[in-house]
Amino acid sequence: MAEIIPHWLSKQADLAPKQTAIELADGTTYTFLELKERSQLFARKLRMLGVRAGSKIGILSTNHIDMVIAIHALTYLKAVGVLLNIRLTKQELEYQLSDAGVEFVLVQEDDRELDSKTALFSDVWKLHGQQGELSSEINLDETFTIIYTSGTTGFPKGVVHTYGNHWWSAAGSMLNLGLSKQDKWLAAVPMFHVSGLSILLRSVIYGIPVYMLENYDKQQFHEALMNKGVTIASVVTMMVKDLINQLSDDRYPDTLRCLLLGGGPAPESLLEKAKARQMPVFQSYGMTETSSQIVTLSPVKALEKIGSSGKPLFPAQLKINAPDGRVGEIYVKGPMVTKGYFNNAEATKKSIKDGWLATGDLGYTDREGFLYVVDRRKDLIISGAENIYPTEIEKVLSAMEGIREAGVIGKAHEKWGQIPVAFVAVEHPTISTDDILAFAKNHLAGYKVPKEIYFLDNLPRNASNKLVRHKLQDCLIDNDFQSH
Amino acid sequence: MAEIIPHWLSKQADLAPKQTAIELADGTTYTFLELKERSQLFARKLRMLGVRAGSKIGILSTNHIDMVIAIHALTYLKAVGVLLNIRLTKQELEYQLSDAGVEFVLVQEDDRELDSKTALFSDVWKLHGQQGELSSEINLDETFTIIYTSGTTGFPKGVVHTYGNHWWSAAGSMLNLGLSKQDKWLAAVPMFHVSGLSILLRSVIYGIPVYMLENYDKQQFHEALMNKGVTIASVVTMMVKDLINQLSDDRYPDTLRCLLLGGGPAPESLLEKAKARQMPVFQSYGMTETSSQIVTLSPVKALEKIGSSGKPLFPAQLKINAPDGRVGEIYVKGPMVTKGYFNNAEATKKSIKDGWLATGDLGYTDREGFLYVVDRRKDLIISGAENIYPTEIEKVLSAMEGIREAGVIGKAHEKWGQIPVAFVAVEHPTISTDDILAFAKNHLAGYKVPKEIYFLDNLPRNASNKLVRHKLQDCLIDNDFQSH
Repeated sequence: MAEIIPHWLSKQADLAPKQTAIELADGTTYTFLELKERSQLFARKLRMLGVRAGSKIGILSTNHIDMVIAIHALTYLKAVGVLLNIRLTKQELEYQLSDAGVEFVLVQEDDRELDSKTALFSDVWKLHGQQGELSSEINLDETFTIIYTSGTTGFPKGVVHTYGNHWWSAAGSMLNLGLSKQDKWLAAVPMFHVSGLSILLRSVIYGIPVYMLENYDKQQFHEALMNKGVTIASVVTMMVKDLINQLSDDRYPDTLRCLLLGGGPAPESLLEKAKARQMPVFQSYGMTETSSQIVTLSPVKALEKIGSSGKPLFPAQLKINAPDGRVGEIYVKGPMVTKGYFNNAEATKKSIKDGWLATGDLGYTDREGFLYVVDRRKDLIISGAENIYPTEIEKVLSAMEGIREAGVIGKAHEKWGQIPVAFVAVEHPTISTDDILAFAKNHLAGYKVPKEIYFLDNLPRNASNKLVRHKLQDCLIDNDFQSH
Repeated sequence: MAEIIPHWLSKQADLAPKQTAIELADGTTYTFLELKERSQLFARKLRMLGVRAGSKIGILSTNHIDMVIAIHALTYLKAVGVLLNIRLTKQELEYQLSDAGVEFVLVQEDDRELDSKTALFSDVWKLHGQQGELSSEINLDETFTIIYTSGTTGFPKGVVHTYGNHWWSAAGSMLNLGLSKQDKWLAAVPMFHVSGLSILLRSVIYGIPVYMLENYDKQQFHEALMNKGVTIASVVTMMVKDLINQLSDDRYPDTLRCLLLGGGPAPESLLEKAKARQMPVFQSYGMTETSSQIVTLSPVKALEKIGSSGKPLFPAQLKINAPDGRVGEIYVKGPMVTKGYFNNAEATKKSIKDGWLATGDLGYTDREGFLYVVDRRKDLIISGAENIYPTEIEKVLSAMEGIREAGVIGKAHEKWGQIPVAFVAVEHPTISTDDILAFAKNHLAGYKVPKEIYFLDNLPRNASNKLVRHKLQDCLIDNDFQSH
């Protein structure tokens, strides 16, 4: 049954009008009442541009206050926001805009050339508003946003998020982490990605502030944790590394109760270092299709189950298509899981059966049911008859002194089918292939030791800082790189 | 869309197997894992009695652990629990059993004579269990329980609660009160009433213990608050009075963060006394149809808005069918509101329109939108052209030194249509009608001063301790009572 709740921003503006909703690095704050009023005003102006129920409107912006307002404004018109990754090429953007049937794109800056129609936030603000009723309720079954998955192979797919998906995601997170009226969530992950967007909605649903950084900046991030009363922050592995480097002998305040780690498996050595500094890192597992985290380590198990992503959140379920304890594909189910891909029944049918989403990730559960994610299924390297998980090798290499980051892929090989090869970014140019191989041999079985090592300044990562391994494949093909 | 979540008790047993689920006054505790295992075992035994999906099974018990187990056991079979008020007469019970089509009644003790088939909890335990699959998921649209409203006029109506109603009720409460893993909820209100049942389900959904008293006992209740690590307790007005009397110069521990007050409007004098003793009383408003509280005063406003029931919980809405600030009937809407009465389309249609439930209660909202409940609509006294709210008079009388409780109703009167008459229970037998009238005249306009005062040992209250005014009407008719 389609559940109806009051419009969440209007409701929070009524329950906690003076509470801070958004806090920016320059000290500017917006209360829930202010955010509601601005969003409703913006909605009235958008109406002048023809936006109506069901309109698909693109949003292309960094974490700017106008982006937040635009997202909420569309909900007051029952229009659908298509959130666009600012790092995409023109061609990639146009594909998504066309696929989603976007009418025009709201942009923060006029620095992108697009064939599609655009409108600057600042130009919308100059319009007169058009009167008329704004939505006062939310039907949880209706579409809220569309976010395209980076799509490492084939065409990107538009993940449809209903309001209900986000409600359930927020509720599941709250049941795991608890909720205090003193909570403040730090967001440096982009709002065009589900990791950032979900923080924005938790803020509205819980009635707590988001401390929002326009872009990730390690110094600002560290400062926010140290001095701004942040209690929870969403992080990816690289941010944790940066924090450890900046922390030296200090400790973060006790009020910082959760660093929610997403974006792929983290090296255990890093988690151990964070533990030694009493940083409350909780591993989690999720993807655009699950409206952010769906499996999260609980506070009580965070130190005990290092390396695990935890258990599925209260409203969610998990299964592995393999015998007990063996590695298999991870399936998840729950009301935060997307009902499907936009305008793509085939992809939906392929990925979701009876509510179970095939994640394409490989993992296993221990005896107590804790999930360990080992890799993307398609990144699995099969060498001889052996399964090799790139992540395992990457974790070993990342733990080596002097290596900043590492990526491993399979390279076609006449005899073995595939062999593992590694790409590394180093902190000291003196580190050699031999050093690395010697280190690897100490920690890995022979067949897992990379047969080639390539040096890069930085590894290719997507907007959510996930390693994009297929770009490493491109490097191999380009032959621009020499094995040292 | 019907949302599917994992079975909530199995899920909590997986997330927090060793966490206490139920704590009894004698010190016995049951973890979530134990509670799940016992409930599943009981379910298998119930299957031997023919219980299957859709069966309606009565439960007639005080707050006994077997009652808790029975409630959960039925969910594993997708059967529906019909929760019966132990204070009802045989005739009243048989009406409900017949109306709901109950197959048999699970009873804790064999002390009630019923025409319907019964089974003692202890006899069910002796049965062999029948194997077969138990429900591993919950469809939130399905029926969980039926609870009959006391029905002050006409026949009682069976309020259908879906799993979703309780999920949303629990979620709404959590968003208002926050959630800490240290929480422990004290339940002395009966589990056959929605106020008690909802505590049981919050426990399962939040993963926190219920400290459960078999019956309300003021000494045990006080002790539990003082020494058992209780953080939240559900109370009615009389319990708050008892607590104040027992507290003397002491204070409850700071960890006691909420006394959630339901069961009708409380005298402001009492709330002021509680405030003076730093008791964190939060007024709330709700009924069986709303799966417990739907309007609750938030922690930050609890001291500022004394006398108000607060604002509708995050997922809920409220409206008054009267101009701004005037008294009118209270309407509420939200996913915790029942979808209707069992097998009674007419009553459902009369009470619920477009999702809005007509509560039959009168109230108004202040400028900031806080609700003040003034009375039951049908209890309104119209004297001359004046509206008189019995609750207003009751609050005044209850505040008088020496008066324990007061109830006011309208009595037919030739000239005025109706006149207010009062029933009081006094602490000192020396208090006289003249004393009371003198006090009333000091605090009330002339037309509100009761024209007759009757003395009772106790006022008639229902199982949830609500004053039952129509029984006062019966007193008038019986003519057993003399005005002094």
